[in-house]
Amino acid sequence: MRAELIADIGNADISTELALSGRDVQASAEVRLREAGVVCGCFVAEEAFRQLSGESRCVVHVPEGSMQPAGTSLLTIEGPAQAILSAERVALNYLQRMSGIATLGRQWADIARPAGIRITGTRKTTPGFRMFEKYAIRCGTGFNHRMDLDHAVMLKDNHFAASPHGDWEELVRSVRARISHTMKLEAEADSLAMLEPLLRGGADIILLDNFSPDEVREAVAIIAGRAIVEVSGGVTLANLSDYLVVGVDVISTGTLSHSYRSLDIGLDFTSGGH
Amino acid sequence: MRAELIADIGNADISTELALSGRDVQASAEVRLREAGVVCGCFVAEEAFRQLSGESRCVVHVPEGSMQPAGTSLLTIEGPAQAILSAERVALNYLQRMSGIATLGRQWADIARPAGIRITGTRKTTPGFRMFEKYAIRCGTGFNHRMDLDHAVMLKDNHFAASPHGDWEELVRSVRARISHTMKLEAEADSLAMLEPLLRGGADIILLDNFSPDEVREAVAIIAGRAIVEVSGGVTLANLSDYLVVGVDVISTGTLSHSYRSLDIGLDFTSGGH
Amino acid sequence: MRAELIADIGNADISTELALSGRDVQASAEVRLREAGVVCGCFVAEEAFRQLSGESRCVVHVPEGSMQPAGTSLLTIEGPAQAILSAERVALNYLQRMSGIATLGRQWADIARPAGIRITGTRKTTPGFRMFEKYAIRCGTGFNHRMDLDHAVMLKDNHFAASPHGDWEELVRSVRARISHTMKLEAEADSLAMLEPLLRGGADIILLDNFSPDEVREAVAIIAGRAIVEVSGGVTLANLSDYLVVGVDVISTGTLSHSYRSLDIGLDFTSGGH
Amino acid sequence: MRAELIADIGNADISTELALSGRDVQASAEVRLREAGVVCGCFVAEEAFRQLSGESRCVVHVPEGSMQPAGTSLLTIEGPAQAILSAERVALNYLQRMSGIATLGRQWADIARPAGIRITGTRKTTPGFRMFEKYAIRCGTGFNHRMDLDHAVMLKDNHFAASPHGDWEELVRSVRARISHTMKLEAEADSLAMLEPLLRGGADIILLDNFSPDEVREAVAIIAGRAIVEVSGGVTLANLSDYLVVGVDVISTGTLSHSYRSLDIGLDFTSGGH
Amino acid sequence: MRAELIADIGNADISTELALSGRDVQASAEVRLREAGVVCGCFVAEEAFRQLSGESRCVVHVPEGSMQPAGTSLLTIEGPAQAILSAERVALNYLQRMSGIATLGRQWADIARPAGIRITGTRKTTPGFRMFEKYAIRCGTGFNHRMDLDHAVMLKDNHFAASPHGDWEELVRSVRARISHTMKLEAEADSLAMLEPLLRGGADIILLDNFSPDEVREAVAIIAGRAIVEVSGGVTLANLSDYLVVGVDVISTGTLSHSYRSLDIGLDFTSGGH
Amino acid sequence: MRAELIADIGNADISTELALSGRDVQASAEVRLREAGVVCGCFVAEEAFRQLSGESRCVVHVPEGSMQPAGTSLLTIEGPAQAILSAERVALNYLQRMSGIATLGRQWADIARPAGIRITGTRKTTPGFRMFEKYAIRCGTGFNHRMDLDHAVMLKDNHFAASPHGDWEELVRSVRARISHTMKLEAEADSLAMLEPLLRGGADIILLDNFSPDEVREAVAIIAGRAIVEVSGGVTLANLSDYLVVGVDVISTGTLSHSYRSLDIGLDFTSGGH
Repeated sequence: MRAELIADIGNADISTELALSGRDVQASAEVRLREAGVVCGCFVAEEAFRQLSGESRCVVHVPEGSMQPAGTSLLTIEGPAQAILSAERVALNYLQRMSGIATLGRQWADIARPAGIRITGTRKTTPGFRMFEKYAIRCGTGFNHRMDLDHAVMLKDNHFAASPHGDWEELVRSVRARISHTMKLEAEADSLAMLEPLLRGGADIILLDNFSPDEVREAVAIIAGRAIVEVSGGVTLANLSDYLVVGVDVISTGTLSHSYRSLDIGLDFTSGGH
Repeated sequence: MRAELIADIGNADISTELALSGRDVQASAEVRLREAGVVCGCFVAEEAFRQLSGESRCVVHVPEGSMQPAGTSLLTIEGPAQAILSAERVALNYLQRMSGIATLGRQWADIARPAGIRITGTRKTTPGFRMFEKYAIRCGTGFNHRMDLDHAVMLKDNHFAASPHGDWEELVRSVRARISHTMKLEAEADSLAMLEPLLRGGADIILLDNFSPDEVREAVAIIAGRAIVEVSGGVTLANLSDYLVVGVDVISTGTLSHSYRSLDIGLDFTSGGH
Repeated sequence: MRAELIADIGNADISTELALSGRDVQASAEVRLREAGVVCGCFVAEEAFRQLSGESRCVVHVPEGSMQPAGTSLLTIEGPAQAILSAERVALNYLQRMSGIATLGRQWADIARPAGIRITGTRKTTPGFRMFEKYAIRCGTGFNHRMDLDHAVMLKDNHFAASPHGDWEELVRSVRARISHTMKLEAEADSLAMLEPLLRGGADIILLDNFSPDEVREAVAIIAGRAIVEVSGGVTLANLSDYLVVGVDVISTGTLSHSYRSLDIGLDFTSGGH
Repeated sequence: MRAELIADIGNADISTELALSGRDVQASAEVRLREAGVVCGCFVAEEAFRQLSGESRCVVHVPEGSMQPAGTSLLTIEGPAQAILSAERVALNYLQRMSGIATLGRQWADIARPAGIRITGTRKTTPGFRMFEKYAIRCGTGFNHRMDLDHAVMLKDNHFAASPHGDWEELVRSVRARISHTMKLEAEADSLAMLEPLLRGGADIILLDNFSPDEVREAVAIIAGRAIVEVSGGVTLANLSDYLVVGVDVISTGTLSHSYRSLDIGLDFTSGGH
Repeated sequence: MRAELIADIGNADISTELALSGRDVQASAEVRLREAGVVCGCFVAEEAFRQLSGESRCVVHVPEGSMQPAGTSLLTIEGPAQAILSAERVALNYLQRMSGIATLGRQWADIARPAGIRITGTRKTTPGFRMFEKYAIRCGTGFNHRMDLDHAVMLKDNHFAASPHGDWEELVRSVRARISHTMKLEAEADSLAMLEPLLRGGADIILLDNFSPDEVREAVAIIAGRAIVEVSGGVTLANLSDYLVVGVDVISTGTLSHSYRSLDIGLDFTSGGH
Repeated sequence: MRAELIADIGNADISTELALSGRDVQASAEVRLREAGVVCGCFVAEEAFRQLSGESRCVVHVPEGSMQPAGTSLLTIEGPAQAILSAERVALNYLQRMSGIATLGRQWADIARPAGIRITGTRKTTPGFRMFEKYAIRCGTGFNHRMDLDHAVMLKDNHFAASPHGDWEELVRSVRARISHTMKLEAEADSLAMLEPLLRGGADIILLDNFSPDEVREAVAIIAGRAIVEVSGGVTLANLSDYLVVGVDVISTGTLSHSYRSLDIGLDFTSGGH
């Protein structure tokens, strides 16, 4: 947050500094939703105002992760006008993106939840902003996938290609024998034929990659409860309901972090100055 | 880049490490467009592979900023399979986003260029990713707005509210007298009535905020070449052509960095392992 | 590594600088075991010499993780005497500790391995040196426990005390329902009575904390393959064989990182100067 | 401290977060000695709890550096259960090591003090943890050696080998003429024959390296008060009393930082939750 | 500031620590001008004392940027003697330099102001201290030049030499067409002949480099209000009045940051200890 | 160096980037003295060019620390014009200051050397630039004082005031008994009467603060070889020869780092572009 404020302000917010001419003006402002959505990141926005002035007092009006109508006031800030003006853009940059992601995640989750299926994101996150995106996805859908490469094993076709092992069962078994007992192993299946080798090797989770809904159904039948079933690839908000197959545990999608739309949120002064 | 690789890899890319079992496998891979778009960020992707191995050799096949059809190979990487596998996600995270932004920016610019009008972004960028977004916008549209708060003065209604000055002309004149002679002053107009005071105060650039196309036309007539004219707010790709009014110099929009879609780009091994 | 060299050298290695008086002396040196042990960290020592001079050339003579007799030459360094002298202490500080840990870990593992039981460390590591200790333990025993608090869930009595849940089964079930599907849940049992609730709640791993060998046997019988069995607390190198109970999967101990002895390793110049 | 907490917690202490389910539980806990020893580092442990919550209140019950019996309560912490649970391991990692070192140092110092001889450590410290080890040694023995390479000159055989000087006297004199007048020069003697040249060159301190007690006696007679006498190498807690030769000023040993045992110290909740 | 205190104190301010022997002594001290000058940086000095103890209370007695006679008390500090003693040197290092620069800047500005000409510094600042020097210059003269290379374009002879353009007009026009509309372009003229091409290319500011006063007069006549006129090179405090030519807007000089004299300022204890 | 280049370049050196339009122009340039002086810091300047391009090749033509006449070429740089243009200012900022300091230091040393007296600087250095100033002083005069507060003890009047000791002898003796045996103790005398107590306490070095030449003579007679004698305060280049009293070992002055003048040094392209 401090780094981001420094990056935005640079040497000085000259506009504010010169406009106020060193006057110590107290002001109050409201942060409001300009369209309906799931609110996420108010505490991050708060931090932006507090970083610029220890005298900033913020009150958050809505629960984190709640759906709210357009016009809702999310946050009231009182404090030095200088801090409010200089932190505004950074605060909104966090809040608009995080709420945009949570809103999109909620749309997915609302469709999948009745089927008892979790929605999670992937590692297709924005460089430098991952933690906030991962948090916002969890705010929207309730769940996360692994945070980074050292949280769980995930074996894909390129791993197999580069490995010294002659078949998938051998690769999975060999890796499994060497990972910590505290860690799970997920393996990506590109075809129905790969399922048995992966299961025999001991995969905890099978990722069905770019399977059609019908293939997903066949895969679930083959796996038969021997592993957690995750579906990914080719799923969109539009066709999501086709993938709500009994036996699927998780649907993961990169779209929650790589192609979201920011929610429209604005800050208005309610008093201050003249 | 190093920070981002560390954030994604954490303590270790266990999947790759265990799959390869310490074998020093050489591999080659292609990074390809899976949909048409403006390519941006190949040198950033290159850097990801090189950071993980000094032996990675990358060849970029297309000019930065060029429009390319689906299927185009952007980049060939040869080197240790370990480095390619561990850097893949991070490299693509940069490349997909930057190309997505450049593609969107190009769509806007292609509409505005014939009218001699520039398209630029705003400060509504993703925390931690601004430099890359700003660069990608320039790649797509050819131009940037100010990079951060210390590059130019921009006076908005909240500055006026918090200032000790009784009218806009006085505020603009007062600030102008104190900024460096190397710096420009931009002022945001919310109505036609504000134009004359801003111009008399000495604004170099007038931002017409949320003006309708007709209001823009009136504003241009009033300004009459006395300041650079920038239009912002309410402009979308769909209605952009309505705003191509003679006398407008620049149209700026936050959408290029706050609501873009990543371009679909993938990496495939072409040789390596068995 | 760079930070550590800076911390040891401070502004300048005045002794070396003044003794050499700016002469560019080439030297060669050997790093040797002064007592038998498992070698670990040669590549880290190498890095210390290379950081101080790109002209340092190191050759490692023994495989990482191998047991070697006293007197074995581990590493030959050739390069500027200045770099060798200034990096010597830091290089040895890493190498001696890492080899000390690996040697101790190997002693534990050699006893446990015939029973098919893994030895792992814990989070009782030295601040600032964890990664190296975790690596050295894996070098010695073959396995690691979770790296830090976000790699797996581990529920202990204090978590229960602070939780809103009325019994252990409820706590475990409630947490399990909310963690990522890629993550395991370990729960610590302080008594035999706790086992059933933990298992019913869905623990993947049960930690038997400060159980006697007889209690471990009873616990294994109760668990009956429904979870991975880990033993910790009260186990020493002296009594380790008492804990090699059939059905135990893992024995973890903090001693590998909190109370090890450095291995005696020295560096001697073999040529250089006069 | 902040870096160490980040390293241990990673993205989140999921166990605590999920067990507490966002409840703001107040708790109190005691940190107690589980074996007798010299207490060192309570203020560092305090800092760990405070870093995670500004509401943590700690009271230290024993003086830093004091010998205490098993069972002694060192520290009471009151505050949010979340902060206590998440900081516990890191706080103890510092406290156990620092107290272990201070306890070992006190054992050495208690033997040497009656003879008027100081005990100090060396630069054989753990990478990343030096400052804490140096402090703990001073807590245990009362004294430190130089902190790093730029605090005093220390000339060893390898410096002589790489130098352009034909004899030790010349080397010492030459270096002495160029160091700051605020700095001392120590030289390592490997034999009795080296003493006169070092003294004539002007060494302030002579290090007798790997001398037997008898050789130390001879050396002291030769030096005859012309330099401070430091003994190092081959000294252990078992044979320390043999080295308490009249005329020796300092005995230094790496063992205080390279081969100590952590003191057994635990944290128990005394109230909190249910 | 924190970095600078760490650099000055190193591991510990041993003198103060040992002299006070752990006593918690409260003291008060005055920071006084020992020669007349423009005061600059009191808030920076304050920060040094506060960084070392949250209990330090500072009162500043004079307005930032005001000219004060020798003997003036600038600052009263009350708080722990340890913090005052350990921060003293660093606090004065900032304050003496910043006041020295402001004093020199004021001398220049007092001569130039009656002619309506601004005095600014350049980028010839001390590595690591630029922000403080730039601030102090503004404190002394009222104005700054660009802060760094990305704040405005400045084209010099070496840029022309390395460019693909055949004449200056073309270079200026080409660069101008590609910079942000929020940015100004300054070009350096080495001769009167260069003025027309620079103006035709569209330079916003012309830098007359090493022009004599007479040449400046000729240049002003040629420029005739078509660009801001800046004079630099060869101007000293002694000959400054010769350059106060009507039509010149700015005189810039590196001397304000590269060759200033620190103002003599001292700190004295007024109570504390015995 | 990297930090300084980043600070000067900011997001981009737009002038150079746009002037060169992406052309890869090779150029060569000379760095020349524009006035006579002692050259210091060529290797730092080199590093600036190399940081911006690994292809920059620099040749230094004069020995570090040598006095050279105006017009001397110090350094030839060959490489990409972009790197030379963007690093020029930073390289010169180091080189001009360091050479300015070395030149001033040499003037002092040339006067003091015949009397066998060392000249050193103090801790009155520029925040962020200390290492370079300390190095440049040593380049000019041959010697340094302590680098920072943890290199040696220096007791001043304010330490005495805040200490629990009733007289100076007691303070010096008490501190001396607790410092490392590798460290020296310096004490500042404000009057002749203080000398005996400081000497009896065991000071290694006596600082005569603001003594007149006659008082220095008296002090030397009293000290009579029992401590190193350092003179400071009130000494200028003009009156330095008055202080060259037999028995004085060192004269220290803050002026070498707080009030120096940069040496005039410039960079000119010798080929490149057209």
